Amino acid sequence: MRLRVYYEDVDAGGICYHSKYLNFCERARSELFFSKGLSPIDGEYHFVVKHIDADFLLPAKFGDMVTVRSSLIELKGASVRMLQEIANQNSMRIFSMQVTLVCLKDDKISKIPDHFKAILHTNSEL
Amino acid sequence: MRLRVYYEDVDAGGICYHSKYLNFCERARSELFFSKGLSPIDGEYHFVVKHIDADFLLPAKFGDMVTVRSSLIELKGASVRMLQEIANQNSMRIFSMQVTLVCLKDDKISKIPDHFKAILHTNSEL
Amino acid sequence: MRLRVYYEDVDAGGICYHSKYLNFCERARSELFFSKGLSPIDGEYHFVVKHIDADFLLPAKFGDMVTVRSSLIELKGASVRMLQEIANQNSMRIFSMQVTLVCLKDDKISKIPDHFKAILHTNSEL
Amino acid sequence: MRLRVYYEDVDAGGICYHSKYLNFCERARSELFFSKGLSPIDGEYHFVVKHIDADFLLPAKFGDMVTVRSSLIELKGASVRMLQEIANQNSMRIFSMQVTLVCLKDDKISKIPDHFKAILHTNSEL
Repeated sequence: MRLRVYYEDVDAGGICYHSKYLNFCERARSELFFSKGLSPIDGEYHFVVKHIDADFLLPAKFGDMVTVRSSLIELKGASVRMLQEIANQNSMRIFSMQVTLVCLKDDKISKIPDHFKAILHTNSEL
Repeated sequence: MRLRVYYEDVDAGGICYHSKYLNFCERARSELFFSKGLSPIDGEYHFVVKHIDADFLLPAKFGDMVTVRSSLIELKGASVRMLQEIANQNSMRIFSMQVTLVCLKDDKISKIPDHFKAILHTNSEL
Repeated sequence: MRLRVYYEDVDAGGICYHSKYLNFCERARSELFFSKGLSPIDGEYHFVVKHIDADFLLPAKFGDMVTVRSSLIELKGASVRMLQEIANQNSMRIFSMQVTLVCLKDDKISKIPDHFKAILHTNSEL
Repeated sequence: MRLRVYYEDVDAGGICYHSKYLNFCERARSELFFSKGLSPIDGEYHFVVKHIDADFLLPAKFGDMVTVRSSLIELKGASVRMLQEIANQNSMRIFSMQVTLVCLKDDKISKIPDHFKAILHTNSEL
């Protein structure tokens, strides 16, 4: 999962606006599903973000190509915890976060269905 | 409709990213409804943007307080054309656009319902 | 600091996209300065986000009016830790985060200047 | 220039928020430069958007892969007019705009430097 930092992503200092790193990580999580021909919104099932613990290590600058790396920390009945890290084109780690997602079915907390679990497992080192 | 230009809105040059002016205008259109205690998504009815003709006259800068002024140009059966202008705190006009919106009902083009028309009229000089 | 959840803020589920809460909190931090007639980018000084620990408690929906409440947790030489909480129009707490900011001067870590400290203190219960 | 429509791009209706198409087109213009190993912010030179005339033809939906196609319409001394069109994965044209950009040097209108002109020409059919 490689992506470019564009004009829309940077702020007055020419560096990536802090909350955009969360967007980049969300794109990477969505691509876990899209890359299998599936969607993260599967009928009545989808995930919502419950908790984020994030370290902003170095700034990403306009034009940078960054890479998002996702790995599974813990898979529970209705929730999943992942580590997502962003590196720049010089392989410097610029951002790291642990994110906890909860599975919803028709807007109620639900057990993660098996075909979702499979995706989260098989891509544990994207 | 006054709003501030924040960090998230500006780009590397410290000026407001161009597409954000469209967002500001959309907020102003939504407030036409919210200010009456209504919503622009009314059951099965809502508007979508069909055409935009926009002039970017002057840059808005970080921290600027801008004002969006909306006026009705033409109200047809299923569509509405509005003029929306943004001025900065020094009353300089910085952006001007004509936007054509089409009314949808259950995702099909629909006649604009009367209670929507009333809002577009009574607020013709917001 | 009250603000509306607009079209641009919500995602496919009609609820506020998760990283937008960070934007709302940043707007509130900027308003600490703007409300005093100052700017969070003061000559060579500004803050950058270093760490975030955030709980997403309840969804904000399209049209909701939310309030951001900021309070100082700890003020050190070059960094500040704040608690920022977002509530909806029914006074339900929907988001809570601790954010650590670091002061930069010409892109190097710097002691927070006194006039910045005064702002962070006097507004400790915004 | 292919890109995915993510959660952050769609609104309550599950379709791409209208101003995001402008962002997608800006990314494509920036890639004209990046793909040559250059940057659209070249020392003191960069472009700003002056005018946009845009037709929103069909909605892009969450998960869609869209393609941005850019072609040169007119190159003048200090400005350039381009046609940019977005198509979805079914080759349906969903968005079309003419955008006029003005070249700035140190924030003043400037003749487009020759190495910028070369890029705009050689990529006239991206």
